[in-house]
Amino acid sequence: MGGGQLARMMAPVATALGITLRVLVESEQAAAALPAHQIVVGMPGDPEALAQLLAEPRPAVVTWEHEHIPAEVFDACERAAVPAYPGIGALLYAQDKIEMRRRMDALELPNPAWSPVDSEDEVAQFLSAHEGRGVLKTARGGYDGKGVRVIDDAAQAREWLEASHAGGPAILIEEQVPFDRELAILVARTPSGEVALWPTVESTQREGVCAEVTAPAPDLSAMMERKAGGIADLIASKLDVVGVMAVEMFQVGEELLVNELAMRPHNSGHWTIDGCVTSQFEQHLRAVLDLPLGHTRALAPWTVMANVLGGHRTDLASALSELDDPEAKLHLYGKDVRPGRKVGHVTVTGDDRDEVYRRAVDAAAIVRDGGAP
Amino acid sequence: MGGGQLARMMAPVATALGITLRVLVESEQAAAALPAHQIVVGMPGDPEALAQLLAEPRPAVVTWEHEHIPAEVFDACERAAVPAYPGIGALLYAQDKIEMRRRMDALELPNPAWSPVDSEDEVAQFLSAHEGRGVLKTARGGYDGKGVRVIDDAAQAREWLEASHAGGPAILIEEQVPFDRELAILVARTPSGEVALWPTVESTQREGVCAEVTAPAPDLSAMMERKAGGIADLIASKLDVVGVMAVEMFQVGEELLVNELAMRPHNSGHWTIDGCVTSQFEQHLRAVLDLPLGHTRALAPWTVMANVLGGHRTDLASALSELDDPEAKLHLYGKDVRPGRKVGHVTVTGDDRDEVYRRAVDAAAIVRDGGAP
Repeated sequence: MGGGQLARMMAPVATALGITLRVLVESEQAAAALPAHQIVVGMPGDPEALAQLLAEPRPAVVTWEHEHIPAEVFDACERAAVPAYPGIGALLYAQDKIEMRRRMDALELPNPAWSPVDSEDEVAQFLSAHEGRGVLKTARGGYDGKGVRVIDDAAQAREWLEASHAGGPAILIEEQVPFDRELAILVARTPSGEVALWPTVESTQREGVCAEVTAPAPDLSAMMERKAGGIADLIASKLDVVGVMAVEMFQVGEELLVNELAMRPHNSGHWTIDGCVTSQFEQHLRAVLDLPLGHTRALAPWTVMANVLGGHRTDLASALSELDDPEAKLHLYGKDVRPGRKVGHVTVTGDDRDEVYRRAVDAAAIVRDGGAP
Repeated sequence: MGGGQLARMMAPVATALGITLRVLVESEQAAAALPAHQIVVGMPGDPEALAQLLAEPRPAVVTWEHEHIPAEVFDACERAAVPAYPGIGALLYAQDKIEMRRRMDALELPNPAWSPVDSEDEVAQFLSAHEGRGVLKTARGGYDGKGVRVIDDAAQAREWLEASHAGGPAILIEEQVPFDRELAILVARTPSGEVALWPTVESTQREGVCAEVTAPAPDLSAMMERKAGGIADLIASKLDVVGVMAVEMFQVGEELLVNELAMRPHNSGHWTIDGCVTSQFEQHLRAVLDLPLGHTRALAPWTVMANVLGGHRTDLASALSELDDPEAKLHLYGKDVRPGRKVGHVTVTGDDRDEVYRRAVDAAAIVRDGGAP
C-alpha cells in the first residue's frame, strides 16, 4: 500500500525475486504506478480498493510504504487471512510520537526529555525547565520537517494546541537536543525473529529535510556502533517489528538518543541500493515474506546518498544528458517537481570519503538545477 | 522489442532513470511483460503492433533484446523518425554468421578457419584439411547450442544442407578450435562514438550453454586484456554498433579468436548487475539514448554469475525460502521451467575467487533442484 518512491523502488527487487507486486496507488500518476506489476487505484481506507488489493490470486502478504494505515485495513487483511506487516502493534509507534516516547521510556531507551502538552501553561513549564527552548511536535501526521517547530515562547504553541482541542493531533514537546550529529540505523526483522542490521549512517539535514547520508557514519567507534545496533535490535524485537525499520538518533558525545522511528524502508537507507549486498527494499520484501535475510555488507568503504529536492529544473529527464559523472547512480521517482520535494536521489561509492561526498552532492545539484550547488 | 529476460532486466534501470519502457512482447506471459511500464502484444513483423509501439507519445528510441528484427521494422522506425539501435548494418553481423566471418576477415581480426559450405563435397574438403573434424553452423537462427553441430563426416551435414537448399539458412563450417578457454568482452558505444569496455570475463559452457561467468577472467595478463579490448573496440567502431555488444572469443595461448557477436546485452554480462558500477542494462539504455556512459568498474575483486537452467524444481518461488546464502543475488526471469532453459541466474561477489565460484554454483543448484549440485 502506498504509491510513493518507496514502493517504486521495491518493484525492481520484486521482479528479480519473481515476486508479483500489486500496489495500491492513490492515482495512476503515482511514483509507484509505472513499475508496479499490478495496480489498484484508491485510498487505504477505501473498502472497494482494499477488496481489489486482497482479491484472487490472494497476496502472500500485505505491506506498506507509509504509516497512515487505518485499522480497517488490518481487519480486512485478517478476515482474508493475509498477513499484514509491520503489524498494527508496531506501526503505532511510527504513527504516534507520544506512544513512541512512552514506549522508549518503558524500554529504558535514551529519550530526549519530553512531555505531552495540552495547554500553554504546560508548554511554559517545560520551556522554563529546558533553557527556554523546546521542539513542539504533533504526535501524528508530521513528516520532513512538517509537524515540527522549534519554539521559545509558549504562545507559539497556541495554534497547534487549539487545533488539537478541535480534534487535531495531540501535541508533545521535546528538549532541543544539543546534538553533535544525526545518525540513523536500519534494521530488518522477520516474523521468525531473524534480525539483520546495516551499518549506522550519518545524515545531514537541511531545513528539517534529509540532504545527504554518509555510510558508514564517519569516525564512529565500534562501541558506538554496537550501542546503535543494540538500540535498533531491542526496539525491533520488543515492538515485534516485521520488515525494515529505521531508527533516527541524535549523537551527543557518547550518548545516543532516539529521535524518530520509521516502520518501513527509509530515506536513510536509500544508499543500500547501490552500496550494499542487500538493499533495504529487497530486505523488506524478504522480511515480510519470512524469507532468509540477505547480507548487509557494504560494497565499498564509503557510500554517499544525496537527495534531489525539487529546484529549478522541472523536466528531470533532461538531467540525464548533463549528469556526466560516470560513477553517479541516479534514481528518479517519477514525481512532478515542486520546490523542496524529494524527487530523486544520487548515490556514489568509493574509497575516498571527501571525494565520494563531493561527487554525490555535485551530481544531485546538477539534476536539481543543472549547475554546481 | 522482445519480451525475454534481457528486456525484463532493463526495466529496473529504466525506472531508476525515469525512462518509460514500452515493450513489444509476444504474449502477456512474456518474461518482460510484468515489469515493463507499457506493453504492446505482438510479433516484430506485425504492422499493427509496430504502429502501437511507435504511437504517441512517440518513443525517443527503439531497441531490441534479440537479433531477429525484420527489415520492415527499420523502415517503419525511419518513417516515424524514431532512431532504431543497433542499426540494421550492425545487426546483420549478429544475425548472420557468414556475414560476420567475412567481416572479421576483412577487418583482419582473428577468425577460426572457416568456409561457407553448400555441398557435402565442400564439407568433406574442409574436414580433410582440418584433421577430420569441424563445427557445422547454420548462418542464421542458432542460439544456446542450437544450430551448431560438431561433425567428423560430411554425411552428417546432409540434413542441414538439404534444409538450406529448400530455403533454410545457409551453412558454414569452422575448425574446432583447440581453445584453452572461452572469454567474452562487453562493449557499449553511443551514436556520438563514446565507448566503454567492461573487464574481460571467462565463461564456462556446458552442452553449448553458458553455465558460469567469472569476472574478471582469472589470470588474464594485462596484454591479453588490452588485446580483447582492442578487438571489441575495433568491432564496435567499424560496425557502427550502438548499444551493448558482446564479443565471445576463444583463447588459444596468447591468441584470441572471435567466436560470436551479440548486438545486445548478453548472458556473459549479467554479472554486471550486481558486480559493476554500471550494469550492461543501464549502459545499453544510456548508449541507445546517446547519454553519457556509466563507469564499468567492478565492485569487488571477483564476481561469479551462475545460470539457473530448468531442472527438477518447477515452482521457482519455492526456492526463495531454501536459498539461504545471504550473499547470493537471485534473478528470476518469470519463465515456465523447461529442462535446460535459462530461467534465472545467481550472482555472488567477494574477495576469494574459489569461494565466490562455489557459492554461486551451489546457489544456482539449490534454485534449480533444491539440493547440492
